[in-house]
Amino acid sequence: MRAPDIIRAAYAELIVTDLAASRRFYVDVLGLVVSHEDEHSIHLRAFEEYLHHSLVLRQGAVPALAALAYRVRSQDEVEVAARYYEELGCRVERRPAGALLGVGAAVRVEDPLGFPLEFFYDAEHVERYTRRYDAHGAGAISRLDHFNVVTPDIPTAVQYYQDLGFRVSEDIQDEDGTIYASWLFRKPTVHDIALTGGDGPRLHHIAFATHERDQILHICDKLGALRRSDHIERGPGRHGVSNAFYLYLRDPDGHRIEIYTHDYYTGDPDNPVVTWDVHDNQRRDWWGNPVVPSWYAEASVVLDLDGNPRPLVERAEEREADVTIGADGFSYTRKGEEMPEYKLGNQL
Amino acid sequence: MRAPDIIRAAYAELIVTDLAASRRFYVDVLGLVVSHEDEHSIHLRAFEEYLHHSLVLRQGAVPALAALAYRVRSQDEVEVAARYYEELGCRVERRPAGALLGVGAAVRVEDPLGFPLEFFYDAEHVERYTRRYDAHGAGAISRLDHFNVVTPDIPTAVQYYQDLGFRVSEDIQDEDGTIYASWLFRKPTVHDIALTGGDGPRLHHIAFATHERDQILHICDKLGALRRSDHIERGPGRHGVSNAFYLYLRDPDGHRIEIYTHDYYTGDPDNPVVTWDVHDNQRRDWWGNPVVPSWYAEASVVLDLDGNPRPLVERAEEREADVTIGADGFSYTRKGEEMPEYKLGNQL
Amino acid sequence: MRAPDIIRAAYAELIVTDLAASRRFYVDVLGLVVSHEDEHSIHLRAFEEYLHHSLVLRQGAVPALAALAYRVRSQDEVEVAARYYEELGCRVERRPAGALLGVGAAVRVEDPLGFPLEFFYDAEHVERYTRRYDAHGAGAISRLDHFNVVTPDIPTAVQYYQDLGFRVSEDIQDEDGTIYASWLFRKPTVHDIALTGGDGPRLHHIAFATHERDQILHICDKLGALRRSDHIERGPGRHGVSNAFYLYLRDPDGHRIEIYTHDYYTGDPDNPVVTWDVHDNQRRDWWGNPVVPSWYAEASVVLDLDGNPRPLVERAEEREADVTIGADGFSYTRKGEEMPEYKLGNQL
Amino acid sequence: MRAPDIIRAAYAELIVTDLAASRRFYVDVLGLVVSHEDEHSIHLRAFEEYLHHSLVLRQGAVPALAALAYRVRSQDEVEVAARYYEELGCRVERRPAGALLGVGAAVRVEDPLGFPLEFFYDAEHVERYTRRYDAHGAGAISRLDHFNVVTPDIPTAVQYYQDLGFRVSEDIQDEDGTIYASWLFRKPTVHDIALTGGDGPRLHHIAFATHERDQILHICDKLGALRRSDHIERGPGRHGVSNAFYLYLRDPDGHRIEIYTHDYYTGDPDNPVVTWDVHDNQRRDWWGNPVVPSWYAEASVVLDLDGNPRPLVERAEEREADVTIGADGFSYTRKGEEMPEYKLGNQL
Repeated sequence: MRAPDIIRAAYAELIVTDLAASRRFYVDVLGLVVSHEDEHSIHLRAFEEYLHHSLVLRQGAVPALAALAYRVRSQDEVEVAARYYEELGCRVERRPAGALLGVGAAVRVEDPLGFPLEFFYDAEHVERYTRRYDAHGAGAISRLDHFNVVTPDIPTAVQYYQDLGFRVSEDIQDEDGTIYASWLFRKPTVHDIALTGGDGPRLHHIAFATHERDQILHICDKLGALRRSDHIERGPGRHGVSNAFYLYLRDPDGHRIEIYTHDYYTGDPDNPVVTWDVHDNQRRDWWGNPVVPSWYAEASVVLDLDGNPRPLVERAEEREADVTIGADGFSYTRKGEEMPEYKLGNQL
Repeated sequence: MRAPDIIRAAYAELIVTDLAASRRFYVDVLGLVVSHEDEHSIHLRAFEEYLHHSLVLRQGAVPALAALAYRVRSQDEVEVAARYYEELGCRVERRPAGALLGVGAAVRVEDPLGFPLEFFYDAEHVERYTRRYDAHGAGAISRLDHFNVVTPDIPTAVQYYQDLGFRVSEDIQDEDGTIYASWLFRKPTVHDIALTGGDGPRLHHIAFATHERDQILHICDKLGALRRSDHIERGPGRHGVSNAFYLYLRDPDGHRIEIYTHDYYTGDPDNPVVTWDVHDNQRRDWWGNPVVPSWYAEASVVLDLDGNPRPLVERAEEREADVTIGADGFSYTRKGEEMPEYKLGNQL
Repeated sequence: MRAPDIIRAAYAELIVTDLAASRRFYVDVLGLVVSHEDEHSIHLRAFEEYLHHSLVLRQGAVPALAALAYRVRSQDEVEVAARYYEELGCRVERRPAGALLGVGAAVRVEDPLGFPLEFFYDAEHVERYTRRYDAHGAGAISRLDHFNVVTPDIPTAVQYYQDLGFRVSEDIQDEDGTIYASWLFRKPTVHDIALTGGDGPRLHHIAFATHERDQILHICDKLGALRRSDHIERGPGRHGVSNAFYLYLRDPDGHRIEIYTHDYYTGDPDNPVVTWDVHDNQRRDWWGNPVVPSWYAEASVVLDLDGNPRPLVERAEEREADVTIGADGFSYTRKGEEMPEYKLGNQL
Repeated sequence: MRAPDIIRAAYAELIVTDLAASRRFYVDVLGLVVSHEDEHSIHLRAFEEYLHHSLVLRQGAVPALAALAYRVRSQDEVEVAARYYEELGCRVERRPAGALLGVGAAVRVEDPLGFPLEFFYDAEHVERYTRRYDAHGAGAISRLDHFNVVTPDIPTAVQYYQDLGFRVSEDIQDEDGTIYASWLFRKPTVHDIALTGGDGPRLHHIAFATHERDQILHICDKLGALRRSDHIERGPGRHGVSNAFYLYLRDPDGHRIEIYTHDYYTGDPDNPVVTWDVHDNQRRDWWGNPVVPSWYAEASVVLDLDGNPRPLVERAEEREADVTIGADGFSYTRKGEEMPEYKLGNQL
């Protein structure tokens, strides 16, 4: 059975515990556009998106990830996806047209890594705000860019995604070949999915793209003005991996949202893979700024198709947070040279 | 005796231990323009400056501050300055024309706070690179903006500077009226001099201004590319105080250099003073990002007019680093609410 | 009689014919903050201003300039201004406290160039939005920067302003010494007032400053989105004179508004004057882009203190628009070389 | 015979008459990276490109386009391309490995529109400068983005490109259905090829992408500083079509180069086509700024595979420059309303 032809990471469905608080964060602060809202859920999109939504917030008892949705190239590919996962022995549920707001007949699966995935093609078109500068705030967000998930066994996860037709753009390894994280893509950017080594399945973050860095900086300034700077977990900064300018926020339920810009074109078949040394202090932040421990430690619970939290599988290999600053001291700016204390501290 | 009519912070003279290493940092990385160099010293200016220099690097045995120079409004004011400090009982040395490269007859004093100050007016004019975009790198620095010094007793230091005609733009206090830091200006920006409470006299940093934030971000990116990201001590970020976008670097000798943009006009006589609560976690970084401990603890030694290090006087009042995060936990984003752990850590 | 101690260009009062249309332009598009509005007038300020207003729009029959207001250093200086202009033989009117909204006792004069000027010190303080990023749109305007007026005889006008304590930063001349325009300042920027040679007295434009270029570009994008791009008369571009990044808009009555950023510090007494050759095609636009004829030809009527339009005096010397592109062909990018046709056309 | 699987626009080969002058423009001003140079040619790439070149400059007698190269998905597709064009009755030449510097075995054809196209896959990899911020100037160019060609019959040309697997993203039409220009893509951006109605075959321009607008603005500033502002033909501005921020330069031979950023993702199969009214004054410039006549009138000669200029075929339909401003006056900012004179002039 062949794999479905996936176009890209398309939307995430998050369970939030206070829809009004989430609305303030995603709509009033981040400026996402409401495509639909009722007492149970809010469907949101970014300014350059014409599909109905790239983020669904659903009211629930416990903060969690309910689904990561990939768009496939045609409606036929939805059924290809269903059969592909059936073949893999996964639980598969077909959702008929009308079952999911803004999206046609789709399929949801519990994938081999334990994540609830959706595959869809048909979707309602709504107004694309690309040129609606009258509605853009200073922090205008263009589109969903990627998902980042925590999973214990990176090589196995990479193989699973390669079988789905994804290609690796970058990864982090150590001198023994242990892989700590890997970035894979379908659309020609650095990634649609990042695989982060750790106890999983958990959702590390979803990321939205802007055109420029000043839009990301404005989000920070605005959070300060609103006395909500504590939504800022990490950054802004420049990643080593992906070369993107980034900001990590935590939403009112603790779900992590990245705002991201400036990665590069990967669409040619021979796009070179970049492998980073886990001890290279510029891999996670090109400026070598420390990573807060929570960024490594915390991630969102993942639900199965019945809405129950998935149990975690522990990572067997070394953990990235344990082999960098604050631990064995093996990290470097320049190999063989010590780093100044202000690059260390309790942070990673 | 009246105080001299000071225009602005004009230049700093730093003792560096490896002139070639300093040149790589200030010229090759930061892109400052060389006005003069020989085996003992390098005289540098930024792109919009037409006076001979705003930074002098002088080879010496121990990293230190040799002088902070203020420009006065006319050559007569240089002598006014000399007599003013003589009246204060300070040590005063007149430097005849020709004694100081690029600068006319000047006066150097050991001021009541223990700092080596210079007052000058006459100065050699050199090419102003304002429109020399062919020479500007992506991180073009426009001009020297201010000095920041560490001194134990802020109210006394503020009074001294007010007597010199400076006005306060912002300060940091606690509920008991203890002042932790104060910003004062002559030119109509937020400051020419910042007074930081701590064991002094020491130089906390000198700051250069750019036009835009992207020029500051480029300096970070470039340091990453050169594998010199460990020059980045803190930031980039947005200050609460001054509202400026900032970056703190440490030069090869550990002297701290700020790159700074986006503060505001203060030139009207009734410019409102902004007072910050020392427990407000957005005062030092508007985004609430932690401050590395070194930023509070470390500062450059200050020389007397004979070139000998000044002994330190301990601060008697509480220290800012001790009354914020990591210590008594009194800091807040919103008064009365706890902050998330990722805003705390070992950092301040 | 000595001249009053002027701090800076502080506000303009414009007569507009449709207050609602003006409100849409200045508030809804440009994002200025309303300090007061009633059926007759709107008082506006920019984000970093704490005085009550920097722009007054007053409903009237004919679009015109009613006053250009300078702030002086103290309330005493207001009376100094009154007597100074009385000495010059000008019409002078004292406005008691309470007569002008948001401003204390002031004086209005008809100056020797025919312009209605105001001098004031006392003023109502309102909230300064410097850190109110939640209220800033993407095109946030910081503060009023300068006035630009049309007057026939530039040397006479320059002398008049120099007597008031202004200093020249830049000017445009030809090989015969004819002066076409001159820029003068009190606050240490390139100008508080620009004098443009032509039939006068007329108001060429008032200018507001932003921090960065992206804020100016956003105003253009937003006007496009609102289908109001015809408010854009010229630019965006980079000036030769002043080095500022600029945009010229025409408000609903045709009053010209400049949005402006990136000029340079001029506060030292020996700030070098930059003189431009009128034939240098980069003087008005550093990129050599043509100037639309309306920019040279059109300007706002000026009222006397009774509200009657001032008659125009014709310029006797050559006019800038007549000695540049489209006319005698004497303009150049590089002296002695012809310019490509796309730099010429009917534009100037 | 099926069409080759084209990835994207990959490189252009231009004939230039003074290689040293071209080098100054492309290397010293624009900052492209030299992959190879000898006395006959220079091979250049942009900062994020790892293939050997995206622009070849070859010394010749007459400025012209020698080839537009598309990359195909594998080496087998090169032969597919050869046979596809043979089937179309086109002249086809196979170039064995080693014949073309930096590129493997390729095929060159004279396509049905009269353009010299190349198809290649194998290519030499060189250092990708994505993270080489030390080498990036302030105007860093990331990658080649697209070609724009002039051809008389747009519907025929669109059909030809659709047969090659390209999809239309935007076009310009009038109320009678006449198509003036069309934008088509393979990679998921607005275009790899734009078809501009006019006498053809001619090359209108090739375009390079930057990450941000400030990089484009810096190129303008730098040209001003070098007294080479006459390279700037049009812009900077924001396109209506594509929503991109743009700048058009003319190289020393008059070849037109666009610098371009901020277009949008088009990769989903149902990406909505945007059709613009030819009378909409915001279609070519979102800010409604006039277009210089040369931009419509001038384009580069195209060579056949023997290096001889192709004869031009006249456009039979109406020309865009003739149905917009300066002609019939039918252009509008808001349908049914006249535009101010400063939006008209002799420009288009």
